[in-house]
Amino acid sequence: MVKIGIIMGSNSDWHIMQHAAHFLEQFGVAYEAKVVSAHRTPDLMFEYAKSAKARGLQAIIAGAGGAAHLAGMVASQTTLPVLGVPVPSKYLRGEDSLLSIVQMPKGVPVATFAIGEAGAANAALFAVSLLANHDADLAQKLADFRAKQTETVLAMTLPDIDL
Amino acid sequence: MVKIGIIMGSNSDWHIMQHAAHFLEQFGVAYEAKVVSAHRTPDLMFEYAKSAKARGLQAIIAGAGGAAHLAGMVASQTTLPVLGVPVPSKYLRGEDSLLSIVQMPKGVPVATFAIGEAGAANAALFAVSLLANHDADLAQKLADFRAKQTETVLAMTLPDIDL
Amino acid sequence: MVKIGIIMGSNSDWHIMQHAAHFLEQFGVAYEAKVVSAHRTPDLMFEYAKSAKARGLQAIIAGAGGAAHLAGMVASQTTLPVLGVPVPSKYLRGEDSLLSIVQMPKGVPVATFAIGEAGAANAALFAVSLLANHDADLAQKLADFRAKQTETVLAMTLPDIDL
Amino acid sequence: MVKIGIIMGSNSDWHIMQHAAHFLEQFGVAYEAKVVSAHRTPDLMFEYAKSAKARGLQAIIAGAGGAAHLAGMVASQTTLPVLGVPVPSKYLRGEDSLLSIVQMPKGVPVATFAIGEAGAANAALFAVSLLANHDADLAQKLADFRAKQTETVLAMTLPDIDL
Amino acid sequence: MVKIGIIMGSNSDWHIMQHAAHFLEQFGVAYEAKVVSAHRTPDLMFEYAKSAKARGLQAIIAGAGGAAHLAGMVASQTTLPVLGVPVPSKYLRGEDSLLSIVQMPKGVPVATFAIGEAGAANAALFAVSLLANHDADLAQKLADFRAKQTETVLAMTLPDIDL
Amino acid sequence: MVKIGIIMGSNSDWHIMQHAAHFLEQFGVAYEAKVVSAHRTPDLMFEYAKSAKARGLQAIIAGAGGAAHLAGMVASQTTLPVLGVPVPSKYLRGEDSLLSIVQMPKGVPVATFAIGEAGAANAALFAVSLLANHDADLAQKLADFRAKQTETVLAMTLPDIDL
Amino acid sequence: MVKIGIIMGSNSDWHIMQHAAHFLEQFGVAYEAKVVSAHRTPDLMFEYAKSAKARGLQAIIAGAGGAAHLAGMVASQTTLPVLGVPVPSKYLRGEDSLLSIVQMPKGVPVATFAIGEAGAANAALFAVSLLANHDADLAQKLADFRAKQTETVLAMTLPDIDL
Amino acid sequence: MVKIGIIMGSNSDWHIMQHAAHFLEQFGVAYEAKVVSAHRTPDLMFEYAKSAKARGLQAIIAGAGGAAHLAGMVASQTTLPVLGVPVPSKYLRGEDSLLSIVQMPKGVPVATFAIGEAGAANAALFAVSLLANHDADLAQKLADFRAKQTETVLAMTLPDIDL
Repeated sequence: MVKIGIIMGSNSDWHIMQHAAHFLEQFGVAYEAKVVSAHRTPDLMFEYAKSAKARGLQAIIAGAGGAAHLAGMVASQTTLPVLGVPVPSKYLRGEDSLLSIVQMPKGVPVATFAIGEAGAANAALFAVSLLANHDADLAQKLADFRAKQTETVLAMTLPDIDL
Repeated sequence: MVKIGIIMGSNSDWHIMQHAAHFLEQFGVAYEAKVVSAHRTPDLMFEYAKSAKARGLQAIIAGAGGAAHLAGMVASQTTLPVLGVPVPSKYLRGEDSLLSIVQMPKGVPVATFAIGEAGAANAALFAVSLLANHDADLAQKLADFRAKQTETVLAMTLPDIDL
Repeated sequence: MVKIGIIMGSNSDWHIMQHAAHFLEQFGVAYEAKVVSAHRTPDLMFEYAKSAKARGLQAIIAGAGGAAHLAGMVASQTTLPVLGVPVPSKYLRGEDSLLSIVQMPKGVPVATFAIGEAGAANAALFAVSLLANHDADLAQKLADFRAKQTETVLAMTLPDIDL
Repeated sequence: MVKIGIIMGSNSDWHIMQHAAHFLEQFGVAYEAKVVSAHRTPDLMFEYAKSAKARGLQAIIAGAGGAAHLAGMVASQTTLPVLGVPVPSKYLRGEDSLLSIVQMPKGVPVATFAIGEAGAANAALFAVSLLANHDADLAQKLADFRAKQTETVLAMTLPDIDL
Repeated sequence: MVKIGIIMGSNSDWHIMQHAAHFLEQFGVAYEAKVVSAHRTPDLMFEYAKSAKARGLQAIIAGAGGAAHLAGMVASQTTLPVLGVPVPSKYLRGEDSLLSIVQMPKGVPVATFAIGEAGAANAALFAVSLLANHDADLAQKLADFRAKQTETVLAMTLPDIDL
Repeated sequence: MVKIGIIMGSNSDWHIMQHAAHFLEQFGVAYEAKVVSAHRTPDLMFEYAKSAKARGLQAIIAGAGGAAHLAGMVASQTTLPVLGVPVPSKYLRGEDSLLSIVQMPKGVPVATFAIGEAGAANAALFAVSLLANHDADLAQKLADFRAKQTETVLAMTLPDIDL
Repeated sequence: MVKIGIIMGSNSDWHIMQHAAHFLEQFGVAYEAKVVSAHRTPDLMFEYAKSAKARGLQAIIAGAGGAAHLAGMVASQTTLPVLGVPVPSKYLRGEDSLLSIVQMPKGVPVATFAIGEAGAANAALFAVSLLANHDADLAQKLADFRAKQTETVLAMTLPDIDL
Repeated sequence: MVKIGIIMGSNSDWHIMQHAAHFLEQFGVAYEAKVVSAHRTPDLMFEYAKSAKARGLQAIIAGAGGAAHLAGMVASQTTLPVLGVPVPSKYLRGEDSLLSIVQMPKGVPVATFAIGEAGAANAALFAVSLLANHDADLAQKLADFRAKQTETVLAMTLPDIDL
């Protein structure tokens, strides 16, 4: 059963949001990914948000850029954890996206991650950590991922100075 | 018949948004003012937006602060002109509100005004200018307002230096 | 008869402002587009602004970058609705343009849109919405545009992950 | 058993972080709150982070200001969900805190919330939503909280204009 | 004969701009100070700018806040040196004013000074330096002012630590 | 005799500062251009500044990037008008340069222009306007330049929409 | 013998810079504190910087606000370690001071600390750490200071929620 | 014996941090360079920091980007001088890195340098200046470096205008 929903305002956001999908796949977490636009498909967005819990989703990852209302509006219609990813915008490089997502008013939380690829990836890893609280297998996988990540860094070497 | 709707995310925004109401009253434009929160009353917001045109509204002025989604989301559900007012936020003084309102994606416009009281007042004056396109009386009032405003400035004097 | 005027500070702004022209054409709204520079043709600017209403214009879309004074100064000389488009600047990417346009003082409103192409397009769509208040045909076209836009998003699919 | 840990860099952050504690109390979620400073008690911080999962915590809420390293460093030593709250700083009002918390590199996620009181409150509500995924009772309480919140807004009235 | 014109968008800017007037008085430079608003008295502004050179002015100091168009628009109508002073704005503390004044396009210069009192004072001192190029007396006064300023700093002592 | 000095912190700033030189040449104003670095040739800088007036200079144009101290430090050692040009920096695109130049304390003015090429060009045009106060010929040239500039804009046409 | 020099642009910076003096006193490090203004006493500044090493200073702490040139210019005239403290400015709260100090070009380093009191205190502690490399006694004092600081945090308790 | 440690969060930071290594080599200062990630190898980081003094290091240069916690966390575990270099981040170009490094709380100093290559180079030069306080040879080399740097600038010529 699908546990995590990944939504984004346009298919042009996929180059960023696929990093979330990639990590969920790596961890074997069932997910769905689709385009849901706050401003162009508002009814779909509300329907998606309202039905998500009943459909068994345990968290929603929402990525959008500019006046990024998707995550916050989804959060307004569900009590599920909503994870927001600021997609870089053309001129302000995601500063607008970040503020539009993170500065939610008291009462309706959105967990926000870094601008761009790192944020999308981390939203997925965070979703995994949520599920891992009740899934020992996944918890082990996450610990393994972290251990391997540490090893990768430990193995890094530096080339000669090239100036 | 009510021509302009003024909505805001909380009654704590009224100290700013009353400047819009004030100007509409000055011009004798029928308006309604109410609290409609994007995040706390999302269904009401959509209902408000969807029914606005049929109820005879000709423009909606929406004020909100922080991750200010109200104006953009109302715009997603109506083809009426939507005017956004960035309400100053506690720590970022409205920079977040401004970017959340003005950086709308192509296809769903929100006309944005200055942060705070000036923006609220100007949203009302702009609404008056819209109506004035088809209301010679109002056009005259607006011209008179501008003329008087000019006179006020022309009459301004400067006190002595006090340092 | 021309209903909407599109002006910009230089022909180098056309790559942005043509997005406004494009949408007005799509909706069959008669418009004119010309270069009017606040700083290099100030007299023309005032003449343009002062005569706009008498010439039958119902709104003016003004795009400029950097210390973008065009929209605000046009607004100072007409009671017509003025729509400002922040053109991206070379080093500050339009943050200067945005603030120069949106932060108008109380009394002289400029409706401001997003930085760049999206803002230009949305200024045009907003102008259409103004006209649509008194033009059922145009209102229908706008509703159709929105419906089609929604359909486009609904039809979007996501490619495979490519990392 | 304590489910949520609230930590902060100094007792001077309590005026903000108590908003998190307040909401956890409202929902009857067992929590602990203590001062753990990244820079002044780094060993305690690592010990806290490393032992948190074994101690049964299901999420850690970490608030800090300025060069706010607490949330990210805790996240480096646990696979538990870590929720970061940017505490407003004296001169930059939390912009530094926000960026220090939210811009985490790929691999070690921190879920970030708004600057200040709203962020602290929302981190708690988000923690509740995590727990609610496996606690029907809490899920109901959260739904009730949202419903009541909606009612509060619906009941808001606006005073007379006072200018 | 009046040599320097000081203009500002509103009498509420006087608390800043009087620092310019103060320094001109200190140096015995004949000046005039008046309210000229770009947006509320645009015709007066152009008239002021166009006639300034013929009236014998040698420089114009223009202070304004927010979308501060005064200095740039005056510069568009005169070849006199125009000195711009960013008046602090309510919410953005003059960042908007600064960018609106300093980011002028190639061809129409505005010499810009610091935000607030320091900027107003320095615009006056700069005006004095212009005049001093052709006025040995004034040049001497300016040198004396600088010397005295240096002495003042040299005489500064520091009190005991009080923490 | 050389009337205007153009200095810059490095020959890598020449691609920007040559715009100042270009305009001075256009107007037939005698100038000198050289590299004077605040941080790498501080003694030369002071010597340059201290001797400038005696050498007959009437203004100094100083361009620098990043922590741009050149203009302000030159101004500390001369009562001549100093014009500062913020050279774009690699990562912050001149925001640091701008603030380092414009935010001078009360008592030592630097006239600041836009970031980059436009600022360099305008500093030169401003220098021309200073000289023109006492040089009818130059004043005429400046008026002609402005008139021609206006004509250039008036002659601009817009190509077809190309989207 | 005086080991550390503390200088600042004005006695009005003392309320910040005394935090540096305070910590040097706590550690028994001989220091001097005086007003040296980059813009108002440039010759003194150079003299101070050039003679510092010969006078036995081992580091210079320089605090200034706005267009803060003091630290960088001192660094241009000495090879001693220079520590810069951004003093908060009136309107931009030290963002200008920070960028003016930290963004030094390659070749002339300034070690920069946080805006305000914390930065002044930390500059002093950093100076202590420099000296401690060759002073076992001081190294011990620094270790003790850190240990005590840790204890202070460990002893912190949180009051009751007060909302 | 190794005197200076250069660490960085990833080998992808080497293109910046090699500028530090390059300068240490130029001065014949023994150094080590390795990857130590705050978030991915936190235990290594603490071990590195805790053992640095005993291993004879006299300063640590730490470079990181985004939520750059490396320098501050190393500083929390050593009393050695820690020099922080903000590595440019993908979307915010190092503004996040800078604030994450420089805004340290009172008690745990990090000496911060410019964003990018210049900052890395200057951190190394600053480290040299620390060592030079007790190494006459190195002091001479540093003086020579500065002298040569000055000569290089003095020898710079400007090409013809090319516009």
